[in-house]
Parts: sequence; C-alpha cells; structure tokens
Amino acid sequence: MVHSLNRRAAIVGVGSSKFGTFKHKLGRELFTEAFLEMLDSAERGLDIKDIEALYLGNAAGIAFEGQGHLAPIIADQIGLVNKPATRLEGACASGGLALREGVIAIASGLYDVVLVGGVEKMSDLPTAEVTDVLATLSDTPYESRVGITFPGAYALIATAYMNKYNLTEEQLMAVSIKNHKNGALNPKAQFNRSIKDIMTDRLIKLKEKGGPLPNWCQELDFLKDPTANPMVSWPLRLFDCSPITDGACCVLLVAEHLARSFTETPVYITGTGQASDCSLHGRADLSTLSATKEAARQAYEMAGVRPEDIKMAEVHDCFTIAEIVATEDIGFFKAGEGGRAVEQGLTARNGPKPVNPSGGLKSKGHPVGASGVAQVAEIWHQMRGEAGARQIDKDIDLALTHNMGAHGSTCVAHIYERR
Amino acid sequence: MVHSLNRRAAIVGVGSSKFGTFKHKLGRELFTEAFLEMLDSAERGLDIKDIEALYLGNAAGIAFEGQGHLAPIIADQIGLVNKPATRLEGACASGGLALREGVIAIASGLYDVVLVGGVEKMSDLPTAEVTDVLATLSDTPYESRVGITFPGAYALIATAYMNKYNLTEEQLMAVSIKNHKNGALNPKAQFNRSIKDIMTDRLIKLKEKGGPLPNWCQELDFLKDPTANPMVSWPLRLFDCSPITDGACCVLLVAEHLARSFTETPVYITGTGQASDCSLHGRADLSTLSATKEAARQAYEMAGVRPEDIKMAEVHDCFTIAEIVATEDIGFFKAGEGGRAVEQGLTARNGPKPVNPSGGLKSKGHPVGASGVAQVAEIWHQMRGEAGARQIDKDIDLALTHNMGAHGSTCVAHIYERR
Repeated sequence: MVHSLNRRAAIVGVGSSKFGTFKHKLGRELFTEAFLEMLDSAERGLDIKDIEALYLGNAAGIAFEGQGHLAPIIADQIGLVNKPATRLEGACASGGLALREGVIAIASGLYDVVLVGGVEKMSDLPTAEVTDVLATLSDTPYESRVGITFPGAYALIATAYMNKYNLTEEQLMAVSIKNHKNGALNPKAQFNRSIKDIMTDRLIKLKEKGGPLPNWCQELDFLKDPTANPMVSWPLRLFDCSPITDGACCVLLVAEHLARSFTETPVYITGTGQASDCSLHGRADLSTLSATKEAARQAYEMAGVRPEDIKMAEVHDCFTIAEIVATEDIGFFKAGEGGRAVEQGLTARNGPKPVNPSGGLKSKGHPVGASGVAQVAEIWHQMRGEAGARQIDKDIDLALTHNMGAHGSTCVAHIYERR
Repeated sequence: MVHSLNRRAAIVGVGSSKFGTFKHKLGRELFTEAFLEMLDSAERGLDIKDIEALYLGNAAGIAFEGQGHLAPIIADQIGLVNKPATRLEGACASGGLALREGVIAIASGLYDVVLVGGVEKMSDLPTAEVTDVLATLSDTPYESRVGITFPGAYALIATAYMNKYNLTEEQLMAVSIKNHKNGALNPKAQFNRSIKDIMTDRLIKLKEKGGPLPNWCQELDFLKDPTANPMVSWPLRLFDCSPITDGACCVLLVAEHLARSFTETPVYITGTGQASDCSLHGRADLSTLSATKEAARQAYEMAGVRPEDIKMAEVHDCFTIAEIVATEDIGFFKAGEGGRAVEQGLTARNGPKPVNPSGGLKSKGHPVGASGVAQVAEIWHQMRGEAGARQIDKDIDLALTHNMGAHGSTCVAHIYERR
C-alpha cells in the first residue's frame, strides 16, 4: 500500500561543488561551495533566513574525515545556526534518504522551505582503507568480516546475472563508455573525459617516457587489456567501478504553493519510494534487486505514471552491472535485456531512454553521501533545458532518480514533473 | 515560527533491552530484545506486517562495532524486510531525531504505523577508544583534534556556569545521587544501585582482600575522595559522568485516530522541537544551551503548554552539569537556580518537578543512539502508572523529554499527553 502525501514539494534551486579529489578541503567546505552556487543561481533571490531546516545525507564522515554529527556543523557553516539540522545515513543512498525526509517534512506541514544536501569527503584515506570503510556499510559479520567488499558483492550480482541471462563483457563496458561520454560534457564531473581520451592521454605519456609500449597501445584496444583495465573482481574491471570522490550537492525544497515565488520553472516531486532488503545471503535471486523494484513501484504509484512515461533517469551505477540491473528493476527494460539495451544505444543521451546523462557515478564521481542529491541536480538541469553541452535533445517533463545503498539493502526512488 | 503538524502521532507500545555491557552481543541482537518485549506487551496484539517503516537512531555503529548502515540490517532482523528503514544520526540525540522523524512521517500522511528505535553497542572497544570515537561527534578540527573530549567540553560548560552563578560540587553530586537512587528502582538500568550501595560493596570487597583501607572507607565520605571518585576533568569527577553502555529501545507510533485500536492508554505526542548550535568556540555564553531553549520553545508552543504545566521530565544528563543546565533551559528553574533545585530535592522522584525518574543516563546507562528513545519509554511507563517501584506518586498526564547531541549542537524536545 502507498499512502499519499498531504502536500507536495517542489525543487526551486540546486547547487553543486566540483567533484574530484581535494586533499586539503573539509566536507563542510565542499558543501559551502555547493550552497553558494545555489544562492548565486537563485532567480528571484533567496534569504538564508527563510530556510527552516537542513536534511543532510552523509554516509561515513566519522570514518573518512574523523567527523561525525555533520549536520549541525554544516548548518553553522552556511548560516543556518540554530535551525534543525538532521543527518541521514543509508550508505550510498544517504542523499536519497535526505531528499525523501525533506519531501516528507514538507508534506507534514512542519516546514515550508527545506534545504536538502549531501556530502562526502573520501580522499583523505588510502584507497584500500576507503574500501574497508565502505565495506562496513554491508552486513559486517556475514559479509565484510569474511572478505566481501563491494566490488566482490557486485561481482556476485554480475555472475548471478550472467548465469541466468546473456551478458557479455562488452555490454558491461558499454555502460562505462556511455557514462564517460556523457561525463565528458559535464564540467562538474570528476572524470570529464571519454575513456578513449583518457587512454590516449596515457599513451602520450608512455610515449614521452620512452621504452616499450604495452599491447593495448597498438589499437587502443584497452578495455580487455589487463594492464590498461585490470581485473578488480571478475567480471568487473577497473572501468566497471565508480571512483572515490570528494563532493557535495544541495537542493532547495519548498511547499508546492510557494514554488513560483522562487522560480519560473520549478521541478515538482510527485512520487517517492523507499525499500530495504536483507543481506546477499538471504536473497532468492541476485540478478535483480527487490528493493529497487519496490521503491520504484511506490514512486510510480504515487506519481500515477508508468515506466514508459519517463523521459530520462539517473540511476545508481556504482558498478556497470548495477546500472544494467537498475534499468530492468525500474521497468525500463525486461529482465535480462538491460545489457543489450545499453549496447544498442537505447540508454544513450539521445537514445529513446536516456540513463545517466550526467555521466553517472562512474564518470561524474561518487561522493557516496552526495550522489543521491547530485542525481537530482542533473534532473533539474535537464528538465529546465539548462544542461549545456549535454542537454538531451527532447523535452524532459517527467524523470526518475534511483539511489541505492550498499548492495541494494536500501533503495530510494523519486519521480519529478515539470509543468 | 512553528508550523503545526497535519496529523498527530500516538505511542502505543514500548520495549527495551537490559542496559549494560554485553560483550558477545551485536547491536542487532540488543534491538531484537527490545522489539520482542514490545511485541510481548502489546495489549491488543500486533501484527509485524502492519509496521510500515523503521526510523532508527544510531550514533556511531560504524566505529563502535564496525557496522554502518544499520537500519536495513535491523529491519531484516526483526521481520520488516523490504520496508523503508532509515537511520538518523545526531550524535547522542540520534534517538530523539528518530522519534521526531517518525512523528513527522505520520503527520505527512505517508505512514500510519511506524517503529522508532535506537541502539548502540559501545563496549567492544577499550574505554579510551570509545571516548575518542565520541569526540569525533564534536567539531573535529576545532575541538577533538586539539584535545577536547566530551568530559572536557562539559567541564568548560561547568566552569563557565560556576563563573556566573553559585554552583557547588555538592550540587553536582546531588544530581548523581538522585539519579542513582532512581535507577536503583529500574530493573533495566546498567547501575541499578544507589551510589552508597555501590561504594558499600566496594568497601566489603576491599575488606575481604585485607590490607590498609583508603580514607573514604572511614565514613563512606567517598564523593570527594580522589581514590573513590577520581577527577576526570575539573570539576567533573567519575560520578559526574554517564557510563559506556550497550542497549536498545523502541516505541511504536501510530496516527492518532488509530491509537485506541492498539491500547486503552495511548500516549500522545503533542509537541516536537529541534534546534542546532555552533561549536563551543562560537558561543557567547557557555552557561546555557541555546539549542535546548529553542527546541523546548518550539515543543511548548506546538503543544500549547508551559513549563509549569509539565509533571515530569527526562532530560539529557550525560554529565551532572548537563542536567542542571537543561532544567533551567527547559524553563523548570530560572538561570542559576538549577543546582540549588536539585540539592533541595525539587527534582526528586516525588518532588514537585521530577527529573529523570528512570535513573537518567547516569544510572540507567547511556547507549548513545538509544538514549533519546529510552527517555520516551520512561514517559510511557510513568504516564500509564506502570513504572513499578519507581512510579511517581502523582498522576502524570503531561511530560517532556530533552535529548541532546554533543555539547548541545543538536537538541530535540518532545511533549507528551495522556488523555
């Protein structure tokens, strides 16, 4: 059963920091960058005093930068001192949870104007330690303590999928190639280069150094080459994995009736869904994520729309297999057809079902607690026709975001309308 | 400004684990204990399938037990798999935040039946490491990294208070003595002994060992004795500090109109308030906590009641000074009069303004993410006349909880009515 919300929320402003690795910045500084961009872009001005509360997604600040309890610290930093400031954590779905609680709070009647944000500062630790921290967001006694990190968990999902359906390595790579192609057009992206350009750069550097060149340099056939694209956890290689990223993003939510006093072109949130799932060992089928299905079902039902109505989606591509499974679980494609769909260009930026025109987590970057909010930023830009070089060439009046925590043990889906 | 909520929530069930140190239990197991007690005590039965969502307070599971992303794990453990499960973190106010988001979610119309819980498993690490983890919930670059842990932060609050008002060590100790006296009547309490009984036991053991006895044994005048009650951070001694605790607690919230289908005696939540504050170095006055004042103001205004109407309160006594300051900031006593009030017995269990009849964090224990929910459990028992040996001897029809994160950088207040 899905109840309805007593009031709807609208997005009236968005801001984002650059995504990347910023060794000397604190999470709060990245968030301030995002917040200032939002303030600067406010069409009809924005008085900070009108913001009544902050909902903040952050997955593991306590472990990544030794800073827990981040919500009041960020509220203070951006001038919201004394306002309610609440941190949500649902692993890599923390940002999506913050958005959902903001939507719920506006529906409750308690607030009219709510700031929703997400932030993660990950690059201070060595890569192996970041992976270990992330692994504590799985089911510790049954997963991380017996050696399963997230690349391993998603490799299990990939192999289960391959066991049931046709899936080629080329199809996995097609996700990565598409998302880097999109991210190359996104100035905020951590890797805003196509994979071909990234590897051409590597080749130029190798040639400058002199000495023998590795095999992949012959034909730029690097994606299956173990030195250019090493195996992480079979069948997932380096370019199947999203990177470690520092970044922050925020969106301003207001009660529907106030939307036009902030902007000529609000984006309305008409559906929200959330579901959980048990750990991997308890699931009957690893080739599909039931929490995605359930969260999407709730969101579609609340919004009164169907998958075929949606013009674009930002989905949680922490690994290439995750995007393929997600596009099936949100109903864009039938089970087993997601790999072929991406290979055939159906999810390309100007294909019939654009997925991750921002570059996705793969290319835009994955500051885990911010990713769910950054997805919303892309929806905002695309729906308003302000996505610049990566603007989709059709009118986007209905869109979806799908944000996932861990191996799908938390999923959040939202549906957006521009009227 | 305080908006009103579109619907009110009622508490219709409560469960709590034993509080203490349980080396071989996981947080999820403690939570299950609490949940099963709630199920067992349901007057009119409770079908787990009717619970639509979980809001969980947990401060630092990722650091204490290597387990982040705890909400879906606990949802799975207690049979709520696939339901939305959301973790809130506001340091030691995490439980209060979970309650508030539960109340907001019911007001939004999204859910009718919500489980709110809190859990913390702290005893797996050595004490010094627990203190270090807790310190990351302060403002890391300005506080913990320059050596301020929470005993130090509250000592700063105590000395600022002493600089402005009369406050004696005896008044601080009066908080501890009162709360242990109350906790001695609470079978769930970690230290369910009076301080005198605790020290008499120590004396008996010392005598059994033989050898010379320390000075405090002569007259049981131990509270100022440096061996019996050592200084932690002047003026705060061991018995001024709440302990490290494992524990969990949960309450079932339902939309007001459904309350009587669950119980004859629901407890209605009529006011909620939340505020944040900057870090210590930014505050004009450390003798009062502005976030407590603001959260309480919001809660009183929403409930339409005044401090003098409240029959009892559970306040956040992480340190003895915190209780004294809180009883002033929630309006029970004028600024500077909280110390004398406790010394004169005004906040005793059967005094005019009972505070922490449960034993408070000091004696009941302080599993940080659960404490805000455990306060609600005490309100429930006292309001329904089910508090057993510690039942207050007057009718409690209006009560308040005050839950605090860090040094008051998050505060949450709620007001409860029994009709």
